[in-house]
Amino acid sequence: MDYQQILEEIEIEIQPLFGQGKVADYIPALGDVDADQFGMSITLFDGTQFNVGDADKLFSIQSISKVFTFTLALKYLGSELYKRVGREPSGNPFNSLIQLEYENGIPRNPFINAGAIVITDTLITHYKNDTKAFDEILLFIKSIAGDKSINIDSVVASSEMEHAYRNLALTNLMKSFGNIKNDAISLVQTYFNHCALQMNTQTLSRAMLYLANHGIDPISNKAYITKSQAKRINAVMLTCGHYDASGDFAFKVGVSGKSGVGGGIVAVIPQKMGICVWSPALNEQGNSLIGTKALELFTTKTGLSIF
Amino acid sequence: MDYQQILEEIEIEIQPLFGQGKVADYIPALGDVDADQFGMSITLFDGTQFNVGDADKLFSIQSISKVFTFTLALKYLGSELYKRVGREPSGNPFNSLIQLEYENGIPRNPFINAGAIVITDTLITHYKNDTKAFDEILLFIKSIAGDKSINIDSVVASSEMEHAYRNLALTNLMKSFGNIKNDAISLVQTYFNHCALQMNTQTLSRAMLYLANHGIDPISNKAYITKSQAKRINAVMLTCGHYDASGDFAFKVGVSGKSGVGGGIVAVIPQKMGICVWSPALNEQGNSLIGTKALELFTTKTGLSIF
Amino acid sequence: MDYQQILEEIEIEIQPLFGQGKVADYIPALGDVDADQFGMSITLFDGTQFNVGDADKLFSIQSISKVFTFTLALKYLGSELYKRVGREPSGNPFNSLIQLEYENGIPRNPFINAGAIVITDTLITHYKNDTKAFDEILLFIKSIAGDKSINIDSVVASSEMEHAYRNLALTNLMKSFGNIKNDAISLVQTYFNHCALQMNTQTLSRAMLYLANHGIDPISNKAYITKSQAKRINAVMLTCGHYDASGDFAFKVGVSGKSGVGGGIVAVIPQKMGICVWSPALNEQGNSLIGTKALELFTTKTGLSIF
Amino acid sequence: MDYQQILEEIEIEIQPLFGQGKVADYIPALGDVDADQFGMSITLFDGTQFNVGDADKLFSIQSISKVFTFTLALKYLGSELYKRVGREPSGNPFNSLIQLEYENGIPRNPFINAGAIVITDTLITHYKNDTKAFDEILLFIKSIAGDKSINIDSVVASSEMEHAYRNLALTNLMKSFGNIKNDAISLVQTYFNHCALQMNTQTLSRAMLYLANHGIDPISNKAYITKSQAKRINAVMLTCGHYDASGDFAFKVGVSGKSGVGGGIVAVIPQKMGICVWSPALNEQGNSLIGTKALELFTTKTGLSIF
Repeated sequence: MDYQQILEEIEIEIQPLFGQGKVADYIPALGDVDADQFGMSITLFDGTQFNVGDADKLFSIQSISKVFTFTLALKYLGSELYKRVGREPSGNPFNSLIQLEYENGIPRNPFINAGAIVITDTLITHYKNDTKAFDEILLFIKSIAGDKSINIDSVVASSEMEHAYRNLALTNLMKSFGNIKNDAISLVQTYFNHCALQMNTQTLSRAMLYLANHGIDPISNKAYITKSQAKRINAVMLTCGHYDASGDFAFKVGVSGKSGVGGGIVAVIPQKMGICVWSPALNEQGNSLIGTKALELFTTKTGLSIF
Repeated sequence: MDYQQILEEIEIEIQPLFGQGKVADYIPALGDVDADQFGMSITLFDGTQFNVGDADKLFSIQSISKVFTFTLALKYLGSELYKRVGREPSGNPFNSLIQLEYENGIPRNPFINAGAIVITDTLITHYKNDTKAFDEILLFIKSIAGDKSINIDSVVASSEMEHAYRNLALTNLMKSFGNIKNDAISLVQTYFNHCALQMNTQTLSRAMLYLANHGIDPISNKAYITKSQAKRINAVMLTCGHYDASGDFAFKVGVSGKSGVGGGIVAVIPQKMGICVWSPALNEQGNSLIGTKALELFTTKTGLSIF
Repeated sequence: MDYQQILEEIEIEIQPLFGQGKVADYIPALGDVDADQFGMSITLFDGTQFNVGDADKLFSIQSISKVFTFTLALKYLGSELYKRVGREPSGNPFNSLIQLEYENGIPRNPFINAGAIVITDTLITHYKNDTKAFDEILLFIKSIAGDKSINIDSVVASSEMEHAYRNLALTNLMKSFGNIKNDAISLVQTYFNHCALQMNTQTLSRAMLYLANHGIDPISNKAYITKSQAKRINAVMLTCGHYDASGDFAFKVGVSGKSGVGGGIVAVIPQKMGICVWSPALNEQGNSLIGTKALELFTTKTGLSIF
Repeated sequence: MDYQQILEEIEIEIQPLFGQGKVADYIPALGDVDADQFGMSITLFDGTQFNVGDADKLFSIQSISKVFTFTLALKYLGSELYKRVGREPSGNPFNSLIQLEYENGIPRNPFINAGAIVITDTLITHYKNDTKAFDEILLFIKSIAGDKSINIDSVVASSEMEHAYRNLALTNLMKSFGNIKNDAISLVQTYFNHCALQMNTQTLSRAMLYLANHGIDPISNKAYITKSQAKRINAVMLTCGHYDASGDFAFKVGVSGKSGVGGGIVAVIPQKMGICVWSPALNEQGNSLIGTKALELFTTKTGLSIF
């Protein structure tokens, strides 16, 4: 299949959508991003890469980082992790406190905010402190992405912290149920730090390869997690990767993926490739509007849906 | 792969689970079923079938019928259908009124009770009356199953109607929002009628083939729905097919499937086969306990997960 | 105190509010009422009556009837009644299904729709059938009002039944929890029938006297209920009589009262008088806008708040 | 009426209830209190006091302090206050986050935790800082109680802060909606400080007199708030003073009152007296079990219900 041509077709077909959607603006640092950008990359198992548009432009990975922290937590805690976070779709907005209260402080899955904060909490405990935890998360991401230059956008990270009240509410609520072990404020800061990492679609598409290949990076041959763990992360991405639009994403796109409010979406084609698309304007459910459409076009054109 | 041997291994491995779980007993007609039964069948595209255990024993298909009514409604209404029913996991019990109230009478997906009742309502409207609608649903199921002998268990159907209060509540609530067009009582009876059809794992596994083959039955070559519709039904089965344990099923089993409180579960392996397993005792989420385990063993042994 | 003068002052002071609020229009028969009407009556223990405005104009008493059915149910069932209906404010809209589902089909109080339907259900059981129950409710109201001419507005009653879906949903939901004993449809019709009675502010103010006088009508000297029961009905009216604006009514008006969507509000001044005010346009919480203001002016001018 | 004799009768009649209920034990400092204690006091307008049992024993006033902070906030902010906190019963547990989320961070009333925290927040803003705010709250309570020795139990205050996660969650959630202006942690500490004040039934019954007398302390003749404000505080106490058992308290006791988890309950008889009862063991709704019964006996014996 001529992936380069497909990407170029997609780039043309999404043009009419520029101007729709809305860039995340809950913090100024994100709201300042120019909406009319688009990049898309595919990385195959042999390292071949196809790119289109702003594929080398850095953006805030935001919730995409939750795939990586989930991976690390699963690696170190194994199935013990599921005592503290579930793997069911939430049926609620990503930052709702309601379900968390009914379900006694156990978040439904690792991708809603509360679940990702629990995951980060387990990593702080595992690595003994928050600085070490962040360093190890960053090292892991550099390793799977094959890019040592990845770094934090500290303006975004501080800006998030200034508007952290809802996440502090979620964290304190879980703490009241005994499901958070570390200090709420430094935990939430660590969580924002890994969300504020900057990457581009090239490095993110490459970083997905270990999930497409049963836990082993096909380029470096490093084994990060087991085959079963990799499949299960893909399953959770499919059912929970797009907040309360996960069913819709599975329905329209038909592959495992994870979005972030920075406008990025990563996706996995088992045994074939890693994908990343980026376009900052979000749809009503908080996922990249053009990114979702581009992936829908991609699976339609290639027939690469898992269904 | 030696599917017969795999099924026989599974039959041995699930033996220790007999005695766990609980047969659905909300109506006497279901509660009387002997819990210690197990059957499993696979049907390949050429019609080859592999069976183990009580594969020819009839059971009440219950919510599995929702896959078939969803198919018919999609065939006749197309994407108009999604104005009246969504495709998102619910994050709530299958018969909850709460989400329905917050979301103005639009059920989250075609597999929770409210959603399936809306689907049946659209079929009554399409076929002009409830009797004709039921006859056509039955004809369709006979066609995809290649079995003209399928029929209703009228004791189950009447027994359901005697305990129909919650479904009548759901139906009237949706009617108050304008999302039900036909008479509540005859609608709920029609819904119970298609749930009370009796089939066995042999015929149900064969009935799944059109979903595994892009909408076309590979045996009869009849085209029921489009490729895109078939993929989307599979996607909804994956994200919503097991009520509030859909994430768990995707996580553990990793294929599209749909369960019923009669103890049956159907599953689809794209481009390969239809599967059905049956064992009456249910787990806490209302899905066949042994059936779920058998499917987990099957995808582990064969590597046939979609992830 | 010169009650006549106070009523006349109030009539003048509420004039600027005509045109605000909105007549209930969920059924045509109610929506057709002219909004710009106002009547108010006081009845003292010796039968002296003070009236202003449209005090002899008949209107649909609607939920005010719930005070009378609650009285009858309490008279016949005593505290057994509280096994089937509570006496707590609901904190939710009057017709919400949510709390009812969480609280296992036991309505919070006799004045939300679900609670009033349970009350009517107990009366149908007590009087053996729905016709007899309605006849006895009507007889009781004629007795406390001292008016044998009271009758049903059958256009309103039938019109309600045509839009009864939400009340049928509530009723079926409670039936699924075992908290409704009679047929849902004839029960809801009986409930609508007593809501569709027509009275005016003269007769309704007089009908409140038994509650102002410890259960005994001070004019006829008939003892309807015990002193303790009368006080408790007044307490429930104070905390629950204005749906989710009960706190606000207690706050602003400071007496026990009950409103109906027909625009009527009854109120009780212990040991002193019965009051009724009527004006059809409702505020956002579904209570008579001018009626609420008129009562607030009345308790301010007379100092007759209970606080 | 012989109040002393009535109090003594009550003391005898509540004896069989010792052993029922459960002392609040969410913090050790409260859990250590001996359950089998009981004190009750009445203070008349001329200062005459009637006491029984442990009427001079200090206990933690807890949520009773919310009556006093509500008074101060109303005094300084007037009706502006109601933009930030409502006056409706909540229909939910006192520390629920659910309603707060649905209602955009505006607590239902000043007596649920979230509402009381908002009240304290307004006082910190009014008095410029948390220390001054606490000092002024304490001064006010000393003034209305006529007791300069009132002080904080600092063990209770620190102990609360160690288990403050849910209150921090509520506070941060409100802050995310813009309804908290000061630092969450020092605000919650200030809130705990005024809850941790120690008083006895003698001083608390005397401290209620300004509410029984239209805002003016009948002993010192100091005017604290307006007549209308005093009535409205009494109204809010009646509809919201006992969390989700307020309807029940109005129903059984029939007067305005406010309970605290320390086992105290204050009550107001308009134009007559202030009352306080204390007994540490709580019923299921978190109100003093024996205290509630004692007040029910009191209003039954004296006929002093407001209904």
